[in-house]
Amino acid sequence: MRIKAFKHCLEEESLDCFVLSDVNSVYYLTGFLDIPDASNVLIVPLKDEPSLLVSSLSFKAASDSATECVVEEVQRGKKMEDAVIEKLSRANFKNVCFDTMTVPAYLKLSGELRRAKVTPRPELIWRLRRVKDDQELEHMRKAAQIADRGMEAAIQAVKPGVEEFRVAAEVEYAMRKMGSEGVAFDTIVVSGRKSAYPHGKCSAKRIKEGEFVVIDLGATHMGYRSDITRTVVAGRCDQRQAEIWNTVLEAHEAAFKTIRAGIKACEVDRSARTIIEGKGLGERFIHGVGHGVGLNIHEPPRLGLDSEDTLEEHNVVTDEPAVYIPELGGVRLEDTVVVLKGRGRRLTASPKTLS
Amino acid sequence: MRIKAFKHCLEEESLDCFVLSDVNSVYYLTGFLDIPDASNVLIVPLKDEPSLLVSSLSFKAASDSATECVVEEVQRGKKMEDAVIEKLSRANFKNVCFDTMTVPAYLKLSGELRRAKVTPRPELIWRLRRVKDDQELEHMRKAAQIADRGMEAAIQAVKPGVEEFRVAAEVEYAMRKMGSEGVAFDTIVVSGRKSAYPHGKCSAKRIKEGEFVVIDLGATHMGYRSDITRTVVAGRCDQRQAEIWNTVLEAHEAAFKTIRAGIKACEVDRSARTIIEGKGLGERFIHGVGHGVGLNIHEPPRLGLDSEDTLEEHNVVTDEPAVYIPELGGVRLEDTVVVLKGRGRRLTASPKTLS
Repeated sequence: MRIKAFKHCLEEESLDCFVLSDVNSVYYLTGFLDIPDASNVLIVPLKDEPSLLVSSLSFKAASDSATECVVEEVQRGKKMEDAVIEKLSRANFKNVCFDTMTVPAYLKLSGELRRAKVTPRPELIWRLRRVKDDQELEHMRKAAQIADRGMEAAIQAVKPGVEEFRVAAEVEYAMRKMGSEGVAFDTIVVSGRKSAYPHGKCSAKRIKEGEFVVIDLGATHMGYRSDITRTVVAGRCDQRQAEIWNTVLEAHEAAFKTIRAGIKACEVDRSARTIIEGKGLGERFIHGVGHGVGLNIHEPPRLGLDSEDTLEEHNVVTDEPAVYIPELGGVRLEDTVVVLKGRGRRLTASPKTLS
Repeated sequence: MRIKAFKHCLEEESLDCFVLSDVNSVYYLTGFLDIPDASNVLIVPLKDEPSLLVSSLSFKAASDSATECVVEEVQRGKKMEDAVIEKLSRANFKNVCFDTMTVPAYLKLSGELRRAKVTPRPELIWRLRRVKDDQELEHMRKAAQIADRGMEAAIQAVKPGVEEFRVAAEVEYAMRKMGSEGVAFDTIVVSGRKSAYPHGKCSAKRIKEGEFVVIDLGATHMGYRSDITRTVVAGRCDQRQAEIWNTVLEAHEAAFKTIRAGIKACEVDRSARTIIEGKGLGERFIHGVGHGVGLNIHEPPRLGLDSEDTLEEHNVVTDEPAVYIPELGGVRLEDTVVVLKGRGRRLTASPKTLS
């Protein structure tokens, strides 16, 4: 079914072949999910059955699980790019496009295939992948439920004196026990000044009384990811902290209320940014309000001021405004949200409380 | 120091500028480690100070930790590739090389920089990265110690009736509590027939009495990774299983004994393969005997039959022969080993027992 829909995209664009290397796109189209740095290649000719070229390492697993394609083993000692060139040379394609390729592989391929025009078109598969079907939404709901359990474990673990990585340990243990296939991305537990880094790493630093603690985590289920952030203060918070936190909450709610099929992504960003700018903190909100989530943790659509995306029904996106103040720390509140007609629906549902 | 050594490589190759996008290479050269899909770019001109171009998201963290370079913020709304082109256009470079780049970014860059030849040279940074210095080896020892603790937790958890992912939960919890920054790769716990997949995924499958269980795990410390595999039988094993397991152990030891600075990587593979072939199982050993490990889980040198690499002092490599039999399952035994003059030294040290 997905192969058929993808071939329809090729037809619309007058392409006669598409070459995919992204493991998540290969999984999306065939049902076979390999490790992230596998070098398999799916060749989708417009008029013929797709071929999945895999290394010996992956041949058995691919043969057992890939559907809608022929699985072919590339013998050891032979380079994947040479196998692809051989395969494509035998057909008489005019327009070969691809999602991603190393530059050396691209140079070799476009040099050898003289009759074909070889062009990167990474966005083409995203036309399909960005709109989730019912099965995908079910997987994402489950990934979100597991993340909520992880957040519950985090909130219980955060106390003055506890090391950041110890909180991450409790998060990941709780999620794994619920069957998470692993984290959706490196769990973030950052406290104090370091909470002002949007992508801080957890360390052996002990959480102190009165510090902001940003907890950003996600689970994976059937390859699909979830993404949630809560910010708390360990122990008692002061008035300034409460003001910032409430501003971010208000911005999060404002963005959430604008989410619906048909709205421009930049308008969702705008609605959150207006709240934060209104408190004189606009300069401290240094990223877009959100991003698509699915098999990738960051995928289209992008929800930022300069985004040209429009939200579609069954996109899944994050809503995560933030304020980062170097000397004080950061506050970010995030849910994973599915876009519906007329509204958004949260997939993550952990309560939002400051302390 | 590392920047100086890298500039020396550029000089040897008559290059006047190198552009790096790999986050681990940027960390190696500057000390700033970002999330895996960050889009920062380090520009290293032969005759000038390096510039690290980062997004607003990463600016504070990069400014606080990057050394030996000037950190520059790329304003939101501006594409990283355009910032790189602008920067490079101002200088009068003739030979610009790079590690990795998307094809669209490459096409744009080589189109705009008319006076410069733009060439992929991904192997250049590996001349340095593949040889670990004392500090790196110290980080890798720590990562290996944490992995040993993870393996201990796994062996304790493996029992008939236990789900695979539950074993992974115990592994990762034990490693996180020791300060691991997260897994080095998705933890593998695969049992029964699925253990015949070299890169199988753990699932809700319950381990059964008498099945092979392959446990492949790694920890991360200061960005450096470790890699260890043990195979056990849950409960009692039969004679056939013991024979296969002992063959793999013998192959592992044979490879280990050949490891030393100056030996060809293909000879290490050959020594393990000869043992396995001697038992008529050569066709079942479907990958090379090992790979380099460091900031990446798979990096040079490659230890396979067709590898042209030669091991150097302070390479860190895996020694992981295996036998995969579809109807029975797989056996793999792996340690992370540092290459010394005249011998190898194991960094991982968990006992090897079948049941």
